[in-house]
Amino acid sequence: MDLLQELKKHNKRAAAKLITMVENRNPGYQEALKDIHKLSGNAYVVGITGPPGAGKSTLTDKLVKELRKKGKQIAIIAVDPTSPFTGGSILGDRIRMNDLSLDAGVFIRSMGTRGHLGGLSESTKAAIKILDVYGAEYIFVETVGVGQSEVEIVKNADTTVMVLVPGLGDDIQAIKAGIMEIGDVFVINKADREGANRTKAEIEMMLDFSNKEKRPSVQMAVAVDNKGIIEIIDEIEKHKEYLIDTNKFHHNRIESTKEEIVEIIKGYILDKIFNNQHINEELNQLTKDVVERNVDPYTAGDLLLKNIKL
Amino acid sequence: MDLLQELKKHNKRAAAKLITMVENRNPGYQEALKDIHKLSGNAYVVGITGPPGAGKSTLTDKLVKELRKKGKQIAIIAVDPTSPFTGGSILGDRIRMNDLSLDAGVFIRSMGTRGHLGGLSESTKAAIKILDVYGAEYIFVETVGVGQSEVEIVKNADTTVMVLVPGLGDDIQAIKAGIMEIGDVFVINKADREGANRTKAEIEMMLDFSNKEKRPSVQMAVAVDNKGIIEIIDEIEKHKEYLIDTNKFHHNRIESTKEEIVEIIKGYILDKIFNNQHINEELNQLTKDVVERNVDPYTAGDLLLKNIKL
Repeated sequence: MDLLQELKKHNKRAAAKLITMVENRNPGYQEALKDIHKLSGNAYVVGITGPPGAGKSTLTDKLVKELRKKGKQIAIIAVDPTSPFTGGSILGDRIRMNDLSLDAGVFIRSMGTRGHLGGLSESTKAAIKILDVYGAEYIFVETVGVGQSEVEIVKNADTTVMVLVPGLGDDIQAIKAGIMEIGDVFVINKADREGANRTKAEIEMMLDFSNKEKRPSVQMAVAVDNKGIIEIIDEIEKHKEYLIDTNKFHHNRIESTKEEIVEIIKGYILDKIFNNQHINEELNQLTKDVVERNVDPYTAGDLLLKNIKL
Repeated sequence: MDLLQELKKHNKRAAAKLITMVENRNPGYQEALKDIHKLSGNAYVVGITGPPGAGKSTLTDKLVKELRKKGKQIAIIAVDPTSPFTGGSILGDRIRMNDLSLDAGVFIRSMGTRGHLGGLSESTKAAIKILDVYGAEYIFVETVGVGQSEVEIVKNADTTVMVLVPGLGDDIQAIKAGIMEIGDVFVINKADREGANRTKAEIEMMLDFSNKEKRPSVQMAVAVDNKGIIEIIDEIEKHKEYLIDTNKFHHNRIESTKEEIVEIIKGYILDKIFNNQHINEELNQLTKDVVERNVDPYTAGDLLLKNIKL
């Protein structure tokens, strides 16, 4: 089948096949992405992040169901940078979404590290474009964990929802520092647990010291009981309006596109290095010299660079 | 003072200054690292990783105290890829180590994302070399979290200790997949808690399916009560012997050195792009074209690459 034609016709299988093609860098994937890029840019991307155990999947599930009531077309990309599995992994999580996966208006995809030669962040970006052209109006990008690669992935989102839970204890100290910059909407999930108000107060205090132009709101929720869901959707919509009104929406897309081009150039250059037998042999010899302390790695890099022709 | 001379004399302040110099890429940092590289390669590097709340800091603390009884010189690098703070952060954790920081035979350093222009993994690698030449016999690299960047950091270690706790619940599913490959020694900390045996059984079962040549051992510990510490040290030593006997120690250092050279080349190339006004202007123009869908990012990358001279 002509995948691009089928993708435009809202064919789920075509979307899934194209994502797999990009993940594996199968022949023709770049040509396909070139065409897809020109048709993309319409979907709104919501990032869902937070520490393990915060209930991100359940929250995503409920947010999606709420948006489905309004007839919106949805895609969910669940990204796990720690998992080598792809296309159907994070099984425990996704099983919970079983009823969603039966809904023709929802596309669900898991992505792990396997087969992402160009990096998980690049594959996620490509999957977003594919699902955009497929016709998803909202694309949820859910990550496991709060490490640096998760931050990279969440950078693809227009609005990022940071999901926390009461009683993170000492860990909140470590998490706090990293999350302030990337959260646009904060959710304290499992807010029926002890300590929810204290966690809220802690986050509000951090926000007092933040330099963000728009102060993120902090929402209480019990996703499993569907509590607080409508309010979170409202906050996402408010953030979207803010981005559009202040032209930040456009500005952010400019910044992420610039990063995208730079990543592509990096990839090209690495291909040049690793697809060239002569350079490979020189790299091996220089590596040996560096390990034996005959030369330092910076000088080795200089020497190697002299032989690379772009 | 002549930092390199002082470093060789086991001067703590010189070591701290050199690490800061590298983090900030201050003038001369590369020259310093060139000299340091040639003197390095003697320390044994132990990675400590695992999910937040697993008690990694406490465990590191106890392992270090045990090695200090044997008179070993120790360095601890605590890396937090989610924290923008550097040189003294992860306060809550490090305060617990206060008695250690009064020990002249222990060097402690926290590293966050701030000021790591070349990437946290590169800075960690450099800090290891500096502390190696400083005279640390064991360097502990402790990370927060289990994301992809933590995996990158742990790759710098000769032996990696994966710290888990009972009752991770559903999260263990997500964690499991990612940890199998990087753990050389598994520790179930807080093993006096309910469910420790079940967690051990789960991990052993995963290890049954692992392709590792040397099956990692799974140790029970209650770090806070100093239980299981000697056994973990034994396992680290056994793994070290295994690496040396099978020549994997040398092989692993070859592999990590090769990666190091490739990273350095990538950095050089990026410098070329971003320190050239003409290329920067072209990147800005192309970014605009890509955002407006006049051109796709791959073609933009191609066009830009043509103007880069190495």
